[in-house]
Amino acid sequence: METWDAIRARRNVRSYTSQAIERPDLERILEAGRRAPSARNWQPWDFVVVTGRAELTELARVWQGARHVAQSAATIGLVAPVLDDEHRREVLRYDLGQATISIMLAAADLGIGSGHASVADQDLARQLLGFPDGRFLAYLIALGYPAGRPLAPIQRPDRRPFEDVVHWAHW
Amino acid sequence: METWDAIRARRNVRSYTSQAIERPDLERILEAGRRAPSARNWQPWDFVVVTGRAELTELARVWQGARHVAQSAATIGLVAPVLDDEHRREVLRYDLGQATISIMLAAADLGIGSGHASVADQDLARQLLGFPDGRFLAYLIALGYPAGRPLAPIQRPDRRPFEDVVHWAHW
Repeated sequence: METWDAIRARRNVRSYTSQAIERPDLERILEAGRRAPSARNWQPWDFVVVTGRAELTELARVWQGARHVAQSAATIGLVAPVLDDEHRREVLRYDLGQATISIMLAAADLGIGSGHASVADQDLARQLLGFPDGRFLAYLIALGYPAGRPLAPIQRPDRRPFEDVVHWAHW
Repeated sequence: METWDAIRARRNVRSYTSQAIERPDLERILEAGRRAPSARNWQPWDFVVVTGRAELTELARVWQGARHVAQSAATIGLVAPVLDDEHRREVLRYDLGQATISIMLAAADLGIGSGHASVADQDLARQLLGFPDGRFLAYLIALGYPAGRPLAPIQRPDRRPFEDVVHWAHW
């Protein structure tokens, strides 16, 4: 898919068909995240990929807003370091945001929908995913083929008007 | 450009030719940022676009690492709300990261390079860009046609190995 189409077609998808994501496609999506830029190239992420139905069902319990994870074809857990310094925590979030959209656009390019989820229950997350001390599960990105309409460029996205968001030369 | 090529071709570019970015291209790049997802669709960003050489030269002074802004064809300032709550600040950074990569991939798709810059001198930033109280300049994204090699898919990116970053089913 053309980049401009993928950017306009990506939307939050939280209802998926039962179709699995082929391993090469999943690897490409993960590779997009691996390539994301980060401050001084510190790459503060690890990606834990869950595809088993029973495991996805359990993983969906880490946050009340993560129910769509249970039906996803695959979910990527973004695991990150626990940091003492607030400034570093903000840098971490920015970089995780950069990895997230890289992943989501690579998925959209393949016709695969994606939906974010936050994580509340870190103990459960750790028990399920097995990440070590000093790390936490920052976000989940659920993936799957849309149960509803396929991904296609959205003509009128639900966003503030362009003229409101963009200021030329000066606010 | 195909999405997968744009994802692999995007790299930090901090040296630019003197070629201007056509207004429709700049608008497309900004539109990509406008479409980025954010928590509960709060869209916490305003984009201030600077293209004048004198203004870019001044803007490059907001941080020691922002010198490439002076030579850019255009630079987008990401202006965001000042927030009291630390959790909200982290959400803000994540969403700004999502907007950033949307912008950068839309640029890469057009053969346009991009380079991040942080901002240290908020007083100077406010004086130059004119954003109101209660906002700050979070990041700059400098844009321009690469002075060196054109954007093309990078075969071996400077990143941790895939096998190190990606964990299947369990850490």
